[in-house]
Amino acid sequence: MSVVPDAVFFTEENSALAVAERLSKTEKTRLSDTLIAVVGQVHTIIKEIRPTPEEWQQTIAFLTEVGHACDDKRQEWVLLADLLGLSALVEDMNSRRPPSATQNTVRGPFYRPDAPHLPLGANISLDGVGEPLTVSGIVQGLDGVPLAGAMVETWQANSQGFYENQQPDLQPEFNLRGVFTTNADGRFHYKTVKPAGYSVPDDGPVGQLLGRIGYPLLRPAHLHFIIKAAGYQPLTTHVFDGSDPNVPEDALFGVKHGLLGHFRKSAGEATAPNWALDFTFVLCTEKAEVRR
Amino acid sequence: MSVVPDAVFFTEENSALAVAERLSKTEKTRLSDTLIAVVGQVHTIIKEIRPTPEEWQQTIAFLTEVGHACDDKRQEWVLLADLLGLSALVEDMNSRRPPSATQNTVRGPFYRPDAPHLPLGANISLDGVGEPLTVSGIVQGLDGVPLAGAMVETWQANSQGFYENQQPDLQPEFNLRGVFTTNADGRFHYKTVKPAGYSVPDDGPVGQLLGRIGYPLLRPAHLHFIIKAAGYQPLTTHVFDGSDPNVPEDALFGVKHGLLGHFRKSAGEATAPNWALDFTFVLCTEKAEVRR
Repeated sequence: MSVVPDAVFFTEENSALAVAERLSKTEKTRLSDTLIAVVGQVHTIIKEIRPTPEEWQQTIAFLTEVGHACDDKRQEWVLLADLLGLSALVEDMNSRRPPSATQNTVRGPFYRPDAPHLPLGANISLDGVGEPLTVSGIVQGLDGVPLAGAMVETWQANSQGFYENQQPDLQPEFNLRGVFTTNADGRFHYKTVKPAGYSVPDDGPVGQLLGRIGYPLLRPAHLHFIIKAAGYQPLTTHVFDGSDPNVPEDALFGVKHGLLGHFRKSAGEATAPNWALDFTFVLCTEKAEVRR
Repeated sequence: MSVVPDAVFFTEENSALAVAERLSKTEKTRLSDTLIAVVGQVHTIIKEIRPTPEEWQQTIAFLTEVGHACDDKRQEWVLLADLLGLSALVEDMNSRRPPSATQNTVRGPFYRPDAPHLPLGANISLDGVGEPLTVSGIVQGLDGVPLAGAMVETWQANSQGFYENQQPDLQPEFNLRGVFTTNADGRFHYKTVKPAGYSVPDDGPVGQLLGRIGYPLLRPAHLHFIIKAAGYQPLTTHVFDGSDPNVPEDALFGVKHGLLGHFRKSAGEATAPNWALDFTFVLCTEKAEVRR
């Protein structure tokens, strides 16, 4: 009667094995190995959670909505990965550094290439709105040697917590973005305004879902940096305002002890406060590789 | 300097814990419990696979494409869940039956409500294209008592492997669909044509990805049934052509030993073959519950 009288078919008990067996019969590639690992864990999750048919439909609907919320300007899947620590994990696994080096972090969605190259001391706040901040720093190697001619690219939110590419009609083009070059002492400095923290987008399916259970969606105030020097590994990182109350619960899990900056209030300023930040960036040589 | 001098921040080592801790501080709900379980397993998967930044981007792009391929007529996420055995697992977990009862399976994407109610013996092949098949059967309880007045709804692909709602311009409306009622002996019978097996859609991101590694995308020939009788649990199931060579690798993991039907060729037919199938459906009472 049947072509397979003794075949073992899919059951609740052997489900992951049944799928993995089928995958293992395909051409062995990175993709098939990955799918075998993913399938095993996802079957485990489903057996642990035991979704009802309604919950399963809601899950499918949510996954679908996350995709539908993605377009050229918005990546809702990246947002979900960010908020669940997946982006930070992948970034950390792929940029292991010695403990004394400045740690890498995600670049985030607001980066724009082609920011203007500016002379040291320039002001990147093109509209001057906010509390003035002077940023200075040094770029050095693990051995403490200052790196002259290093490229220091920075971008940040304004005093309301918005990047210029979020507000193309309200902020000047390339506001609060610039590229500087360190001097002979490995140092750089520029003027800007103190950035504000902000909430990640909460109007899409991801923000709606996680906001519903009171999950943290706020980022503490920070500056973004990409530092490049010949012979050294490029560094993509944040410097956070260490006094921001949202530091312990950064929505993107980007905060690390070595990335907390001290925004100092200039002495003797009675009216509008002036701020200063000095930070040391420590790069690894291209050959330095850390395996744990 | 910092508001949290002793805080423990996210690291590669504590990643899942850092996220779970944040989730555990939210309101305790089914959703937060689910997310805690999901996050733990997904961090495990990522640590096992160790995606490169490029692979991670490809993953995000794939997930996005799956969502973009979904519309009113196509559910690519369900297809992915089907092909990885997730739909079958959820279905099995939610419809546990005693071993002697007919097993439940997924309903699949081609069901349409409002199929016509027909008298016993009617022909549901409205275009008559294909090899004639007479389907008969009995609906009974676990105790073997025939169930009179039970509703037997059926739908199937045609002799080319297409459902009428896949070919609205080529097949008559409601072709190969019908609802019958069992007689006083619990029996039903109708005429149709022998269905062909088919491939699940392979023109979207899911079929493309899995087809690339030679993963099975074919379904063996089958008939769909929904059986309902007062006082009994509704049964949604397939009856497969047990002689179809694709039975061992049904793309949707729907095949079970008890669902293999014997399509008999009528004796003495020299030219166009006539086929017959007889099948016994065993229902559980509403109160019957199987917990393992």
